[in-house]
Amino acid sequence: MALIVQKYGGSSLESAERIRAVAERIVATKKAGNDVVVVCSAMGDTTDELLDLAAQVNPTPPAREMDMLLTAGERISNSLVAMAVASHGVDVQSFTGSQAGVLTTERHGNARIIEVTPGRVEDAVQEGKIAIVAGFQGVNRDTRDVTTLGRGGSDTTAVALAAAMGADECEIYSDVDGVYTADPRIVPDARKLDHLCFEEMLELAASGSKILVLRSVEYARAFNVPLRVRSSYSNDTGTLVAGALEDIPVEEAVLSGVATDNSEAKISILGIPDTPGEAAKVFRALADAEINIDMVLQNISSAEDNKTDITFTLPVADGSRGIELLSALRNKEGWDDVVYHEGIGKVSLIGAGMKSHPGVTADFTEALRDAGINIEMITTSEIRITAVVDANNLAEAARAIHTKFDLGGDEPAVVYAGTGR
Amino acid sequence: MALIVQKYGGSSLESAERIRAVAERIVATKKAGNDVVVVCSAMGDTTDELLDLAAQVNPTPPAREMDMLLTAGERISNSLVAMAVASHGVDVQSFTGSQAGVLTTERHGNARIIEVTPGRVEDAVQEGKIAIVAGFQGVNRDTRDVTTLGRGGSDTTAVALAAAMGADECEIYSDVDGVYTADPRIVPDARKLDHLCFEEMLELAASGSKILVLRSVEYARAFNVPLRVRSSYSNDTGTLVAGALEDIPVEEAVLSGVATDNSEAKISILGIPDTPGEAAKVFRALADAEINIDMVLQNISSAEDNKTDITFTLPVADGSRGIELLSALRNKEGWDDVVYHEGIGKVSLIGAGMKSHPGVTADFTEALRDAGINIEMITTSEIRITAVVDANNLAEAARAIHTKFDLGGDEPAVVYAGTGR
Repeated sequence: MALIVQKYGGSSLESAERIRAVAERIVATKKAGNDVVVVCSAMGDTTDELLDLAAQVNPTPPAREMDMLLTAGERISNSLVAMAVASHGVDVQSFTGSQAGVLTTERHGNARIIEVTPGRVEDAVQEGKIAIVAGFQGVNRDTRDVTTLGRGGSDTTAVALAAAMGADECEIYSDVDGVYTADPRIVPDARKLDHLCFEEMLELAASGSKILVLRSVEYARAFNVPLRVRSSYSNDTGTLVAGALEDIPVEEAVLSGVATDNSEAKISILGIPDTPGEAAKVFRALADAEINIDMVLQNISSAEDNKTDITFTLPVADGSRGIELLSALRNKEGWDDVVYHEGIGKVSLIGAGMKSHPGVTADFTEALRDAGINIEMITTSEIRITAVVDANNLAEAARAIHTKFDLGGDEPAVVYAGTGR
Repeated sequence: MALIVQKYGGSSLESAERIRAVAERIVATKKAGNDVVVVCSAMGDTTDELLDLAAQVNPTPPAREMDMLLTAGERISNSLVAMAVASHGVDVQSFTGSQAGVLTTERHGNARIIEVTPGRVEDAVQEGKIAIVAGFQGVNRDTRDVTTLGRGGSDTTAVALAAAMGADECEIYSDVDGVYTADPRIVPDARKLDHLCFEEMLELAASGSKILVLRSVEYARAFNVPLRVRSSYSNDTGTLVAGALEDIPVEEAVLSGVATDNSEAKISILGIPDTPGEAAKVFRALADAEINIDMVLQNISSAEDNKTDITFTLPVADGSRGIELLSALRNKEGWDDVVYHEGIGKVSLIGAGMKSHPGVTADFTEALRDAGINIEMITTSEIRITAVVDANNLAEAARAIHTKFDLGGDEPAVVYAGTGR
């Protein structure tokens, strides 16, 4: 008998009808002979509606109260799913994050899971019950206050529970039936992948793929929890994310997909002294302000004045804070200029096969050249190549690379309406 | 410095705008030099919306899951009120029923409070914070499962907290600015009362007045918590419910008001042997089925066959179960007939003054006679007279009694839209 953890996103639970459909799937999984633990996000737009109400009573609400408010959403979906399952005559019990033993740090709105002690959930499963656990929420280990896990929190709840309970598989349900070789809205012949290793999925998530949140993949990799990305609207087996990069035989290593990301901006610092410690000043200032930088490029210094240029990318959301900070630093340090630019896009090619195919970078750059697209920055990792291009060329760049590496399939991609949380 | 517990009903919290208004009142109470603990019901129609969703996924949802679902409503209003209070720069903290130490029996949907251990709430108040507590909910002392307190549960939460914390007053806010001498929708010249003793309020609540739930008044009386019924839409001081009947000086004892109730039905058992134990069979059967009966009338037996008739009232909601039960018993016992009748209404006159005015019952019956209304049943207590009349005559009966005892005021009653929970 296998233990399956299933996580359903908000789009899978947006109405009473959808909840009944999800309940049927849960009951079918149980009747197929599995133990089942389910993690639910809030229904459809519930979270947005609660955020809207909060904004109306206080533009800067206390984080603790915001967590108390938002966790109500998962309690609602959770109990409704439990009721729907119960209507099939199956034993079922719902649990809040606290009841499921999801212990977190105290940071409201973005808490980290410290430990999962799912004793009550395990007891319920042992008694033959289906357990329904509210996602996205936990409890501060010290104060017993309710916390939330931030973006992708329900995925993280599911993976953490699966790890703590030694589940055989953690199924992540949304309205997309798997991980694709590219975003099908951008690349029409994108093909669904049957299997990816954790490292490939991590690189995809870090490069702009929205299907799984980076943090939950990191958690799954750390505890070796096989993930299966599936759609709650179909019976497709989805995409299995499991196994380590080093365990993939060379002859099976392929290129997995193309990811795009238009959520970053670029800052260039011009005329900064090319001496030890100067670049560190820049990145220390950004780190102290909790601004995450992504790609970094430092030019060769010009011989005459021993000055150089540093360019890096950062989330658009942090752009104005970043530029404000560095402009102040520029005045103090005497750098020539600080330039901010939002109109960029990142295109990445990811795949374990890159390790054993040395010509990939050459093919990648040629594909962009042939499409007439200029590369502004380029970085590589063991299994990823990323280029920054003009945002207007991002979709074309993705298509060019996808075609160059022959990633497309014959069957058209299946795309459903809406997006999961 | 006084400690005030304020309870706000759903109609007082039906929108972000109303929540902001409530927050202003809370902050003003604090700034006037009081310690303040607030208990909130769910916003406006939230509970009905959740019940509707539940019915769509399971017509007979498990009670435990229903409690998990419904308590989300109070968590939402609770955290929003806390946010709105925080926007005034005042220290505030919200608490779930569990966090506030509301320990209950295990009966989901209608749990009883066993004990309130408000240590965390007291700590917050001691630190100068306003405490906001989710009403209607508690936690099963043994299993730590979330429970709800049934109808009027938020009032009960407020009174129980006030009792446990030794509050100076418990203010119950709704959209009505106090207790009236009659329902102003039925009796236009109904007058707001400034003061009632606990026993009078108990009799009013038991006789159909909806303003306070019987259970919360019983709790307030048992722990001697002064209640103040007020409107969140006005600054009227409302009605104070406090003090014991025996402490009212005879010269101050007056008649308080008229209550009406059309939620009961009548069952008559005809031709039942007038021997010891026969009536007991009827009431034991009803009690075993958890059907509460209200008024009981047993006729004098007819001489020839030593048989009698028994008539009693019970909630309309229990009517079909009651009649089914007694019809089965009739076949077994050989009673002549069991007759069910829904079209009845109860009109009651209540007041401490009744004790010292022996002519009240005579005046009461004359008022109905003069209005041409037939009395089907009549019962009295120390401070109450109740008559059962035809439902079609109920409003007219209330007006006749109200006028006869000169309970009306010169100023028109203030009636607001909606009703509180």
